[in-house]
Parts: sequence; structure tokens; C-alpha cells
Amino acid sequence: MRAHQRKLDIKHGCVDLSHGSGGRAMSQLISGLFHEAFGNEWLARGNDQSAFDVGAGRMVMTTDGYVVSPLFFPGGNIGSLAVHGTVNDIAMAGARPLYLSASFIIEEGFRFSDLKMIADSMGEAAKSAGVHIITGDTKVVERGKADGLFISTAGVGLVPEGLDLSAENARVGDRVLISGTLGDHGVAIMSKRQNLAFETEIVSDSAALHDLVARMVAAGGCGIRLMRDPTRGGLAATLNEIAQQSELGFSLQEEAIPVKQGVAAACELLGLDPLYVANEGKLVAIVSPDVAGAVLAAMRAHPLSRDAADIGEAVPDDHHFVQMTTSFGGGRIVDWLSGEQLPRIC
Amino acid sequence: MRAHQRKLDIKHGCVDLSHGSGGRAMSQLISGLFHEAFGNEWLARGNDQSAFDVGAGRMVMTTDGYVVSPLFFPGGNIGSLAVHGTVNDIAMAGARPLYLSASFIIEEGFRFSDLKMIADSMGEAAKSAGVHIITGDTKVVERGKADGLFISTAGVGLVPEGLDLSAENARVGDRVLISGTLGDHGVAIMSKRQNLAFETEIVSDSAALHDLVARMVAAGGCGIRLMRDPTRGGLAATLNEIAQQSELGFSLQEEAIPVKQGVAAACELLGLDPLYVANEGKLVAIVSPDVAGAVLAAMRAHPLSRDAADIGEAVPDDHHFVQMTTSFGGGRIVDWLSGEQLPRIC
Repeated sequence: MRAHQRKLDIKHGCVDLSHGSGGRAMSQLISGLFHEAFGNEWLARGNDQSAFDVGAGRMVMTTDGYVVSPLFFPGGNIGSLAVHGTVNDIAMAGARPLYLSASFIIEEGFRFSDLKMIADSMGEAAKSAGVHIITGDTKVVERGKADGLFISTAGVGLVPEGLDLSAENARVGDRVLISGTLGDHGVAIMSKRQNLAFETEIVSDSAALHDLVARMVAAGGCGIRLMRDPTRGGLAATLNEIAQQSELGFSLQEEAIPVKQGVAAACELLGLDPLYVANEGKLVAIVSPDVAGAVLAAMRAHPLSRDAADIGEAVPDDHHFVQMTTSFGGGRIVDWLSGEQLPRIC
Repeated sequence: MRAHQRKLDIKHGCVDLSHGSGGRAMSQLISGLFHEAFGNEWLARGNDQSAFDVGAGRMVMTTDGYVVSPLFFPGGNIGSLAVHGTVNDIAMAGARPLYLSASFIIEEGFRFSDLKMIADSMGEAAKSAGVHIITGDTKVVERGKADGLFISTAGVGLVPEGLDLSAENARVGDRVLISGTLGDHGVAIMSKRQNLAFETEIVSDSAALHDLVARMVAAGGCGIRLMRDPTRGGLAATLNEIAQQSELGFSLQEEAIPVKQGVAAACELLGLDPLYVANEGKLVAIVSPDVAGAVLAAMRAHPLSRDAADIGEAVPDDHHFVQMTTSFGGGRIVDWLSGEQLPRIC
């Protein structure tokens, strides 16, 4: 799209229903705000879909919806999160993220200035992750029918030849590696909730992990059985899911699990367990014991995983339990969370 | 995922915040409801992304958010719409749709029985369009923070070799073809709005157009310059967009534009113009005059476009106007809609 009569008044304006109508106002919003933030040759063509060339190979596709509240939090906002989260779901397959789509559902009355900050964060996060947001959609709903802004991103990526990370690959004796401290994202969000606000220096760990993954794959190859990012439900949910899918159990050492002091303190205050709190820039890898040392060393050499740790191993268990030896030498089962601990954390 | 202790009570149950928590309840909802409806080998693996093999070539990616109100309407529901709309955005590039992702944002209290009907419709629509929903995400927000259910789908497809449909391809003298009657979807939705409810036999035209597109491409090849589906903003918005992008004007014959009598009557009642009303199973094609006859014949031979018509041509126009000769022999400019006519029509 080229000719537009008026510029958006980003400083003072708000989204209204006309911005979702398919008419001129929508076209102005898209070209004046989203194209500015994501600027690339695909969006400039103005088609309802975008094309790209691929070589023969294995691709992955993923999607996530983002409903985080509040929209802005220490260490990021819903925009950067929507890029990092989807990039990470691609990266967990060992794949190189290539292209993203973005679907915006906006509540009438949402401020252009907030939308611009969020779109700019998405553009920056995409740029630094080396991916392009090549297609999108904008819908507007009436005041009171959404909570400011929801974003759904989808993404595609390319899997290196010969790599097939999946829970079925896990074997008894495999090591459980974690890329860093647990619970930072969840605690950063909770510290800004209106009904909870407390003082903490903790910021979200929201980050794109594809480069870390590439280095881990270089170090461990197919000795890496699978990777997951422990987001909603934290490490506990992720390991229980893997246990179910791989038909194994896991045995963890509490002492080995890195948790920042500020996170531990906040969790104690809120009655939470860091094992269940969401992360947005961490991964768990299940790796064969013969490459675990090399993979852990590669992780510790990367700026996003200086605190990487070997926290336990896969064990035979018909019940697919995740068990933990506590710091006091006792044992406990780390079960699935059955209720809801932290709504709208991502 | 395999072992689940309790089945979902689909008949009486509702979605609560725990179904978005990443824990056991979410896993039950996903496997008990979405996997049942979409059932395929990809979802069964339970990864956060799904992999597929591609040959070398040109792919397209697209996304759309669906916020239609009401969720159920004559001729479909938000689920079938979310599949058809995204399949169609892929098909408009002349591409064969392959895989979809689905992101659900659900309001706390939403009934499982409604969600199941919607998911089943998605599964059926995908099956009959020959695409697979291979990855998804579910978020739940508190009561009052969304309007029942929003769905964002994304999709990828494969473009036949040598085909590059885009607005830049359009030339003066190209014909404007439309695949059938205008405004059916918009009128069907409006007839069920609580504040407007009126009696009509009109049902939504929501349908997947990829098969029709394949036949048109077979008949017209690269003589087809571009295709678009005239959804939000209707034919008027779509042709104005194409006019801007191609730096041409369009001259239409009102007489040639097919509109069902029931749609014309409803539009008169509501003070709407069918040219601005949304369609979900129609396409506009800009085609070279030397293949226009063959493409139109191929369209009329297809069950989804029996009423296809040649409604005008591309003309030189520095202002990129869409002009129409009315049935009474006068002329008018079919401008962009500047305000919002029909919020949440898709």
C-alpha cells in the first residue's frame, strides 16, 4: 500500500472498531504501525499471505497465544514474549526459526502508543533472532470484550538433516540438563500484578534460545534426545509431560536445581514452588550420558545459560513419576499441578 | 499423552482457569477434546511443534484471527470459519494448503459442549479441505476478559512451480471475475445478532476455495494475475486494495454483479451496500483478457461458483479509483469504507 491521506496520531490516538473493518483505517494502522515496526519486503507486498522459497528438507510449525497480564513487565512485554515464545518452540525441535506470522486481537480503546511500543518490541526481538514476521492479521473487538491485547504468533523453521528430537527417544540413564535459574519470568510478572505488587529486582528471562540450541546440537548431535522450554506449569509440568510421553520416570536432585535468591524469596512470600513457575528463556534437555558433559560445557559457554546444570536422570518407572531428593536428604514426588497457580503468565 | 485419570465431562463441564495452566487439566482438555476432533499422527506425538517433510519449492504462510459474533451462525461456526478463512488465504496465492496451526483463547466458563462442537467443525472442515491441524495452543482468561472464544489459525501451503500471483501483475484491460453472489456471509451473521435478529433464508457462504483455485489455475495458468477473497470490507475494500497495489483503476458493471434477492432485501433493511459486506467463500480474480473466457467457464463448472461472473475490467487511473456503471446507466465511485460497518463479522 502506498497512498495514505492521513498519518496515524500515534501519540494521542486509540484503536477503534474501524481499525478492524478491512477499510482505510485498518490499512493505515497496518502500514503506519505494524509495517514500520516489522518492515520487510514480504509485508510491503501487501498480500494476504507471504511466499518464501525452501530447499527440500524437514520443517516444523508451531503456534502460541499470548494473553499475559500485565502487558508490560520487567524484562519485556507481550510483543517480545510473543516472538521469543514461538521462536523457542521451533528451536526446541533443534530447528532454525525462519518466519513468523502474527495475529492481533485488540480491544477497542487500546492506545496506539502502547501498541507501537509492543510492535516495536516484536520487530526488535524478531530482528535479533534472525526471523521475519512475514504475514499478520488485525481484529478489533468492542470495549469490554477482550483485555487490551492478545497476540497469537505462529512460526516455521528448518530442522538440520538427521535430527529428530522427540520424547520417545529418551532412555533410562539419560541426564536431565537445565539451562539456568527457574521461575524468573513468573516472579517478574507476579511482582507487577495489581493485587500482589511487591518489590523485587527479578526480571523476566524472556529470550530467544535458538542460538543456544544450535551450539548444543553442535556439541551433542543426536545424543540430545529432546528439548523443551518449561513455560506454563514450569519444570514440573514439562518433566511430567516428558515422563508420560517417554514412559520413563525422572529422579532429580533438589540441590542441583538453580533458583535465584530473589525468586526463592518471592515464592516463599507467595506460597509458590519455583518448580511450577513459568520460564520464558530456559530449556530442559534430556541427553545421553556420553554427551552430557560436552553439552553442559557448551551451555555454560553461552551467555543465556551460564548457570546451566545437570539436575538428574531418567529412571525406569511404570508410573512415570518425577521424584526429587530434597536438600535435606528426603524424597518427594514432583506431581503435575492439578489446579491453576498463576493465570495469564504468558 | 496416554494415561489420564478422569475423562472430561463434555456434556456438563466448563472451561476454567486450570485448563490454561500447563498442568493436568490442560492436558486432559487437549487430548480429550482437541485431539479427538483433529486426530492425526502429529498431535499424537504431543510435542510443542510438529514436523513435516517438504520438497524444494515455494511456500506461502498466512494467519487470521477469528472473533466472529455470534460464534454459531447459519452455515457454520467460528471453527469451520477459522479453517476456511486460512485455507482460502493460502489458496489465493494459487497454493495447495498443507498444514494449519490453531491458537485458542477461551473465556473462563465457556462450555465444553460448545467447544466440542466448534472443534469438531474445525476437524471436519480441515478433513474436507485435505489439510491437517498439526499444532496448537490453548489459553484461558478470566470471566469478562474475552468474549467466549477467539481462534487464530495460521497455515502453510505449496505454490505450483512458475506461479506468482500478486497485485503488481495486473494490467490495463484485465478482466475482473467474481466467483458468485456477494454478501451472503455478512447477512447470515447479522441475522443472528441479538440487537438485529431478522428472518432470512440466507446462510453463510463459508467454504474452502482451494479446489476451485486449482481448476482456475489449470484453465488460466499465468494469465491469472492475482486472486483475493473479499472478506471484511467486501468486494469494495478488496478492489480498492488491488487498485492501490497495482496502480490501476477498475471499472465495474453493477448489472453484472450477482447478489441474492434475500441479501439485497436484508441490505436494504439494514442500510448496507452488498459491495461492502463480507464473504467467506468467494474470490475475485484479475485475469488477462485472453484467458478470461476459459477461466470463467472453469469457474461455472465448479459447484462453489455456478454464479461466477465477469463484472468489469482494469483501466488506467492515476487515482486508483474503483468506478461502477449503475443499473440505471449512471456512474459512481466505489470508495473504501471509511468507518466500521459490521464489526466482528469474521
